[in-house]
Amino acid sequence: MNDLSNPNLVSWINVEKDSDFPIQNLPFGIFKTSQTAPHLASIIGEFVIDLALLSRLGYFEAFKIDQSIFANNSLNDFIGLGKPLTNAIRTRISELLREENPELRENSEHREKIFHKVSEVQMLLPVEIGDYTDFYSSIEHATNVGTMFRDPENALLPNWKHIPVGYHGRSSSIVVSGIDIHRPKGQTKADDAENPVFGPTKLLDFELEMAFIIGKQTEMGDTVSTDDAEKHIFGMVLFNDWSARDIQKWEYVPLGPFLAKNFASSCSPWVVTMEALEPFRIKGPEQKPEVLPYLQYQGEKNIDIHLEVLIQPEKSTSHTVCRSNFKYMYWNMNQQLAHHTVNGCNIRIGDLMASGTISGPSSDSYGSMLELSWKGTKAIPMADGTERRFILDMDTVIMRGYAQKDRLRIGFGEVKTKILPTR
Amino acid sequence: MNDLSNPNLVSWINVEKDSDFPIQNLPFGIFKTSQTAPHLASIIGEFVIDLALLSRLGYFEAFKIDQSIFANNSLNDFIGLGKPLTNAIRTRISELLREENPELRENSEHREKIFHKVSEVQMLLPVEIGDYTDFYSSIEHATNVGTMFRDPENALLPNWKHIPVGYHGRSSSIVVSGIDIHRPKGQTKADDAENPVFGPTKLLDFELEMAFIIGKQTEMGDTVSTDDAEKHIFGMVLFNDWSARDIQKWEYVPLGPFLAKNFASSCSPWVVTMEALEPFRIKGPEQKPEVLPYLQYQGEKNIDIHLEVLIQPEKSTSHTVCRSNFKYMYWNMNQQLAHHTVNGCNIRIGDLMASGTISGPSSDSYGSMLELSWKGTKAIPMADGTERRFILDMDTVIMRGYAQKDRLRIGFGEVKTKILPTR
Repeated sequence: MNDLSNPNLVSWINVEKDSDFPIQNLPFGIFKTSQTAPHLASIIGEFVIDLALLSRLGYFEAFKIDQSIFANNSLNDFIGLGKPLTNAIRTRISELLREENPELRENSEHREKIFHKVSEVQMLLPVEIGDYTDFYSSIEHATNVGTMFRDPENALLPNWKHIPVGYHGRSSSIVVSGIDIHRPKGQTKADDAENPVFGPTKLLDFELEMAFIIGKQTEMGDTVSTDDAEKHIFGMVLFNDWSARDIQKWEYVPLGPFLAKNFASSCSPWVVTMEALEPFRIKGPEQKPEVLPYLQYQGEKNIDIHLEVLIQPEKSTSHTVCRSNFKYMYWNMNQQLAHHTVNGCNIRIGDLMASGTISGPSSDSYGSMLELSWKGTKAIPMADGTERRFILDMDTVIMRGYAQKDRLRIGFGEVKTKILPTR
Repeated sequence: MNDLSNPNLVSWINVEKDSDFPIQNLPFGIFKTSQTAPHLASIIGEFVIDLALLSRLGYFEAFKIDQSIFANNSLNDFIGLGKPLTNAIRTRISELLREENPELRENSEHREKIFHKVSEVQMLLPVEIGDYTDFYSSIEHATNVGTMFRDPENALLPNWKHIPVGYHGRSSSIVVSGIDIHRPKGQTKADDAENPVFGPTKLLDFELEMAFIIGKQTEMGDTVSTDDAEKHIFGMVLFNDWSARDIQKWEYVPLGPFLAKNFASSCSPWVVTMEALEPFRIKGPEQKPEVLPYLQYQGEKNIDIHLEVLIQPEKSTSHTVCRSNFKYMYWNMNQQLAHHTVNGCNIRIGDLMASGTISGPSSDSYGSMLELSWKGTKAIPMADGTERRFILDMDTVIMRGYAQKDRLRIGFGEVKTKILPTR
């Protein structure tokens, strides 16, 4: 465990006990206010920390770097400094916030300008995403889908336990938490219809996922081993891979999902570093049959992150429909990245790689309405007395995630998206 | 037909009769030399035209634009000026080159610096590609694949004639002509084997495609009609969508091709404008059953572009293995773009959308070795007496394309790629 994760660290800024953002977290994001252009930030408790201003005021002067990167509108160049530097900067932020350090605590003029209440800023997409890849790495999810749509006796396809199956998605339509999305239209075809019809999707769904952000590029032809994978992973976000199940069903054979997915995906604004998540590493599931050598790995590569999904109908309170955990993943991130690059495919800083739907073993841990409502056959009750089988207009879907071990809690905040009627 | 396409236009620069780049073409690209950093260029005959220098010397001063865009290392900002301006700039370049215009012709000092022999420059990737989409729009190709791998009686899947099927590919690994590619490694499984094995692909293939470059962005939720599609298409390139057939076969169900494709795609360096291609518009094939209203279109939306693929074994001459034509496309670009955006998926300047393999009706017009060798059952003779069923190490694959009508020829040059042994 690195020093920044020490649960005994206390800040002179008051942080609630169940906050996602204690001094041990210090994730990175991009914010703006009515007064300031987008630039880099971190967060502690309920306060967003203006890193561009910290830089301008000289608090990072020990770092011999181009200080203008803190004023960028994405994290890419910052991430590109490399882990030795970004970790050192995170350490510096931690030091500035520790209760015993008067440096910033006693400078009320600086303090007032550097910290913004969360409610007074707007968070933006944290990285410029070059390529977006979505995996399909939850065995419970893959089994559920296979059981529903193919054969319960042979739910998993033959390649599933040999390959961390993945596909390329659309990066242009990845948006940050808080951006509303219109219900997409598209072609669908009923099983008993001769021809497809066009209209708004009737089976709009979320997919509960987590995603990692590439922190170190490779050149074409390079491969990344499972051992080296973590050198290339900067941090993680919550990810909602919106899906239109009726469009998906009609379009996806033989080349995979396209319009059923590319209308939007939503992510949480704070990139939690892999270093902050280190204390929550656990052993992954046993993989049988044995995987090919390039997919074999050493050590604890799963992470214990509690996840939940809530649906909030308009003018009602939110209702938890799913509690899952990132630890259920059959394929870990090291394996995903080793697979992705084993053919020489190059990766770039800011690339986003999502887990696929994270379902757990119990029926209340499934990570999509498709599974929770079992293809729409089962109604999910809401707090306002209505029911859901899929997502309705004006519903807000909220995903939250946090890791907890004894007194240490490292959270992701949330990704929250309202669905508007079709345009 | 716009004025720039007039076959009677003649330049004071000598252009061979069969040149791809007469004064009527004037495509855009990015070049560098040993002396100069990457920036914008056009080409006439055998001469690359330095547009950044033309700008610095005041030849574009009539345009009230940020002249520094000509010094960029991608076309994106230039394209972002919009068609009225980029067409006006192309008109200005055409005027400067016309035999009756002494402005540049008589300025030997400028002339010497502005023009570079093609052999003395290096061409680079013309655009920064945000998202890359690959369609599957040749009915001959889809039928061949369906016949080989599924059912000759039902070669086309049920959705094929209703949807311009497409999927997202990898943008990071799109490279320009001239960049060598290493044979990729990956998982494959023989039909009679219990488990997959890992190693270099044995079935490396090209796919003869063309791609269009997005010239005007949309916001999430916007749609582009078939009528408006051309406002959003800047121009076209030749495109080789490299494929590893054995990797593809094992991985692609259910989410589509991934590592079988994302190790590399290659494109030609010159973006030929849609305006230059306008004289070659022709009627597309009849579409039966009738497509849904959002896919219906007016006018001539196919383009008659001769295409050929050559294989050049090491230390041998090249041999033409395929002659096809872009006119065979069942789904045209207007339909592809209307479909891509009908769900509100946003597009960005520089996005690249490829046609899918362009096969024609005859067996020598198939756009991949998979089809030409009919799954490897038929050997294709080379000039040096060897045979090919798929692509071997040290082979160079060359794709060329041009449109011709009477005396007017508008070409794309070539995309040429050498395959190196696996790393």
